[in-house]
Amino acid sequence: MAAFSVSVDGFGAGPRQDLQNPLGVRGFELHGWFQQTEIFKKMHGESGGTRGVDNDFAARSFENVGAWILGRNMFGPVRGPWKGDSWKGWWGASPPYHTPVFVLTHHARAPLAMEGGTTFHFVTDGIEAALKQARAAAQGKDVRIGGGVSAIRQYLVAGHIDEMHLALSPVLLGEGENLFAGINLHELGFAPERTIAGENATHILIKKK
Amino acid sequence: MAAFSVSVDGFGAGPRQDLQNPLGVRGFELHGWFQQTEIFKKMHGESGGTRGVDNDFAARSFENVGAWILGRNMFGPVRGPWKGDSWKGWWGASPPYHTPVFVLTHHARAPLAMEGGTTFHFVTDGIEAALKQARAAAQGKDVRIGGGVSAIRQYLVAGHIDEMHLALSPVLLGEGENLFAGINLHELGFAPERTIAGENATHILIKKK
Repeated sequence: MAAFSVSVDGFGAGPRQDLQNPLGVRGFELHGWFQQTEIFKKMHGESGGTRGVDNDFAARSFENVGAWILGRNMFGPVRGPWKGDSWKGWWGASPPYHTPVFVLTHHARAPLAMEGGTTFHFVTDGIEAALKQARAAAQGKDVRIGGGVSAIRQYLVAGHIDEMHLALSPVLLGEGENLFAGINLHELGFAPERTIAGENATHILIKKK
Repeated sequence: MAAFSVSVDGFGAGPRQDLQNPLGVRGFELHGWFQQTEIFKKMHGESGGTRGVDNDFAARSFENVGAWILGRNMFGPVRGPWKGDSWKGWWGASPPYHTPVFVLTHHARAPLAMEGGTTFHFVTDGIEAALKQARAAAQGKDVRIGGGVSAIRQYLVAGHIDEMHLALSPVLLGEGENLFAGINLHELGFAPERTIAGENATHILIKKK
């Protein structure tokens, strides 16, 4: 299962990710709908926020999830071998996952336990190995592919995603990482199940038949 | 101005257009929302049909239009030189345009007057020439780029489209003609203006700022 925000022109992230642009240039605009929800505000210790359709979808992203899988770029902007333990993710001391999180990387690193129940495990032997470890850790709950675009694409093509929630944001990025280019979702067995208009995004559920 | 139906995965037409598949294989699914509207039913001499948001958008597609421009494949499946006058478009004796229609082609052909005020003019000297002729014929009303995908893309890149209505259909085509691949809409000055949930499609208006 995966959930992802996407622009009208099909991008799941902007170009040129760096420390200032975790989602690439203008990528944060994809998450405008999420940032206005009560769920998001609560995560950041704030009150208020919208409570409608967008908030319900945001809540679902975190329900019944026993483990997450993230691509390395989703974990951070560091490339190549890890230089010590200084980079601990984009999310500060208490990441929003509260489960084991398996990070795909080519470079070994010891597990990193954070506050609130999130432990990052660094998996160097590929997407299948990460999925196997995540399934074991999830103990019957869902494994969620959190992104980024490259990780989602790899798991899609390998046939391991059976359901996706797309949050179509009213944004034209123009350039960046295209979520589906070159992937034949119809051939993979996907069909749209439902389209639901949210306050600040259109939510599209696609599912394997 | 242009209006176009597009799949969740970004296709404006299916692959392998032929006589049985005017919009390419499965392309007709993109227009499911349109075929259920009162406007569409009326065009085909039927009664009934939906009257909500989808119908309003369908109606707008034909309002205040003084001339249309179509790509050659949108006019028909014939390739290469015209073999006589036998192909008269996909729409039967009375096409739904009721205005002059300028068809982009590399092969000359005499104008073709149809019932109901539609006359097809075949333009062999490029998209700029076709636009000039269409503007003159429209006498102050809008010129509408009706498609297909290739014609829309050419006019977009040339900077001649200032507004688009996208009807996002709950369909995954998997393959076909991608509407925006390789075109940077943000750089061209476009931004989303409004997203409106219809009964069977999500309507997105994008406009030059």
